[in-house]
Amino acid sequence: MSVDYGQRHGAELAAAAKVAQRLGAVEHRVVMLDLGQFGGSALTDSSLAVPDAGVKGEIPITYVPARNTILLSLALAWAETLQAQHIFIGANAVDYSGYPDCRPEYLKAYEAMANLATKAAVEGRKIKIGAPLIDLPKKEIVKLALELGVDPAETLTCYQPDAEGRACGACDACRIRKTGFADAKIPDSTRYRR
Amino acid sequence: MSVDYGQRHGAELAAAAKVAQRLGAVEHRVVMLDLGQFGGSALTDSSLAVPDAGVKGEIPITYVPARNTILLSLALAWAETLQAQHIFIGANAVDYSGYPDCRPEYLKAYEAMANLATKAAVEGRKIKIGAPLIDLPKKEIVKLALELGVDPAETLTCYQPDAEGRACGACDACRIRKTGFADAKIPDSTRYRR
Repeated sequence: MSVDYGQRHGAELAAAAKVAQRLGAVEHRVVMLDLGQFGGSALTDSSLAVPDAGVKGEIPITYVPARNTILLSLALAWAETLQAQHIFIGANAVDYSGYPDCRPEYLKAYEAMANLATKAAVEGRKIKIGAPLIDLPKKEIVKLALELGVDPAETLTCYQPDAEGRACGACDACRIRKTGFADAKIPDSTRYRR
Repeated sequence: MSVDYGQRHGAELAAAAKVAQRLGAVEHRVVMLDLGQFGGSALTDSSLAVPDAGVKGEIPITYVPARNTILLSLALAWAETLQAQHIFIGANAVDYSGYPDCRPEYLKAYEAMANLATKAAVEGRKIKIGAPLIDLPKKEIVKLALELGVDPAETLTCYQPDAEGRACGACDACRIRKTGFADAKIPDSTRYRR
């Protein structure tokens, strides 16, 4: 499941659809929910600039208010309808940009809440929130992708790709990703526009 | 904030707008999010009948998967943008129809999660989830409404009102509300269509 939440570009959704297809997903569902209506983030408000001055200690303007909480809640609703008990999210707490909703303690609290929230959980079908990348440095994520046969060129990390889905190479997300390839000593196959 | 989530009718949203206006709310925002796309509930799927055979011990088909979790998450995003720290929800655990996401332990877990989820909370602006009706029997809610000058005829409880917003008088929600007026020995001013 992906959410079209009013992000600056559709490249992320296109990349997710392609990867889902390659992996043989039964369905890739795109839920429409305009998070831009709440404002407050450079990722949904095109009047705010995406920073490219390097990763600092503070929570950046690319933080989207309550984003992962909303994404997980939509996934929880769908999981319950499908009678699924596992939800996976690509949150990463290492090399991260300071997002509170990418931390293990947050995901643990979400899981506890989810197991009180749903009819399924009350009836014994407990929900597990999985975050297989949470503890991995970017370097290990790059290696894992190659081991699993995922082509990094088909994935997207950049906050402001162009219309062809090519990365800017300058935003925080690009910087962290580039360092991952460098640290892994693996040639960076990301499609950059500059 | 109300959510137009694909409920069977717009009467609930119209009632919320009217009550918000009477109370002098600065803004009544309606967020669009189609929960019907996940299915699984008589409240969003018009092919499923709303039960009217009386309240039983089990969780009814009017349960909407993860509904309150989604509603609170949207409210959390907006609260963070507004720098608000209080979110109120009308959940009620007494006389309730068996919804897991109307229980105090659920709301407590939600609050704990929210305080790990947001930039605001991490920076010290803690979120409080208020549910002023949670412990009140319907009888007390009816009395409280009258004390506070809220006209019950302007509020809506029914799962399947008609186009004029008149209650069916037969669904579980109507039954529980009727009992509340009877127990409070207050004439029921609800607009019924039969």
